[in-house]
Amino acid sequence: MTIVLKLGGSVITEKDRPETLDGRALDETADAIAEALADGTVEDIVLVHGGGSFGHHHANEFGVSTTAGSHAVDAVHAIHGAMTTLNRFVLQRLLDRDVPAVPVAPFSAAYRSGDGALTLPTGQVETLLGEGFVPVLHGDIVAHVGAGVTVVSGDELVVELADRLGADRVGLCSAVPGVLDGNDAVIERIESHEDVASVLGDSDTTDVTGGMSSKVRALLALDGPASIFDLDGLTAFLAGERPGTTVDGERQ
Amino acid sequence: MTIVLKLGGSVITEKDRPETLDGRALDETADAIAEALADGTVEDIVLVHGGGSFGHHHANEFGVSTTAGSHAVDAVHAIHGAMTTLNRFVLQRLLDRDVPAVPVAPFSAAYRSGDGALTLPTGQVETLLGEGFVPVLHGDIVAHVGAGVTVVSGDELVVELADRLGADRVGLCSAVPGVLDGNDAVIERIESHEDVASVLGDSDTTDVTGGMSSKVRALLALDGPASIFDLDGLTAFLAGERPGTTVDGERQ
Repeated sequence: MTIVLKLGGSVITEKDRPETLDGRALDETADAIAEALADGTVEDIVLVHGGGSFGHHHANEFGVSTTAGSHAVDAVHAIHGAMTTLNRFVLQRLLDRDVPAVPVAPFSAAYRSGDGALTLPTGQVETLLGEGFVPVLHGDIVAHVGAGVTVVSGDELVVELADRLGADRVGLCSAVPGVLDGNDAVIERIESHEDVASVLGDSDTTDVTGGMSSKVRALLALDGPASIFDLDGLTAFLAGERPGTTVDGERQ
Repeated sequence: MTIVLKLGGSVITEKDRPETLDGRALDETADAIAEALADGTVEDIVLVHGGGSFGHHHANEFGVSTTAGSHAVDAVHAIHGAMTTLNRFVLQRLLDRDVPAVPVAPFSAAYRSGDGALTLPTGQVETLLGEGFVPVLHGDIVAHVGAGVTVVSGDELVVELADRLGADRVGLCSAVPGVLDGNDAVIERIESHEDVASVLGDSDTTDVTGGMSSKVRALLALDGPASIFDLDGLTAFLAGERPGTTVDGERQ
């Protein structure tokens, strides 16, 4: 039973303030994961975290997004460096709680072809899982044929990992309790993007990777259902429940 | 024309003193590479550096080698962390000289199967090269089926990269001017391991990755010839010459 869990950048960082952790949220997240592993509720788990105020800030500065690239080596070091720093913070909180967390940097493994299609080799992740480690990936930049480097979002990584690892459960721990309708009520189930297109705008704060609308699109493309929930739903998700919004598209 | 160049850990670090750079040697190395790129002698180059006093020290402490593994998450962070630190020093010297150097961490990309065979995806390296960057890999640890994590040596990475990228030239910049015979004279050409078995001992200092003997074995397995030389030979190698020892095996 393999779980792919994304920790939203807006959950673990203060998204409005450059390079600022949300230490309390990160502690809560790490507690929930450590407990689920310790009591055997969860066995194999791959974590992915977003960029929050670490990655997006620099990506904007250099005009880099998932489609707009840069050949500036400074862009690579600013964005990848900030994401590596955030990754170390996340790893440390997990290690402090005896979670055998190890880093897997997408920049070192993945790339995009000229049409933007992402190739993310996953043999290293599968092997780490099999050997008892908890791989922790993150939104990053990647080499992109013809474009230099572009952003790879945590959401894209989740979808790639879920597909390639054949994940049994996929969860996105977000800043909101699920996908919200026009009255800010959680939509329980989404089966196509058209169902919710009218209520899905962009994120409030800067997000080069597209906000809730792109999350839903990405999750609809998965073979199985996925959950979007907030920190209050994390323990329930890890225990096998379906808090927040379930996104369950049918593959075309 | 693609070059794969390894900078020996014993060249760029003080191998006898834990976690100590050889700053002067690293400056000279970075100067030579920067000049060769600036004057157009070299176009596409992939760099690999060894662990020297950064990696080997920790690998010994945890009893980890290319074959002996560990499941301790502390081993991962100690060894990978030290190698990442060394990598940042190498990158910075190159960036200071306008070499568009970027990190590629083998731990994030590669793994070993149960029989120890290394899989190193290279699409990211090829794409970075094509976009004008200089990928810099390093000796590291990697997930190993059944063994936890084991060491991957810079020499192994060089061989994998040279094979998979179809490198035109392969060079190992070492602490010695080439493979030495019993009288400490440089052997000009080696075509089989048997030719030199009698003179190849282990390295003087701790080297979990096997010293000159394993370097020669690894290079003999390549399709084309490779060169082993020291810092004095680096500029000549980058200019297209064959300083030091040429290792040219015939594939079995």
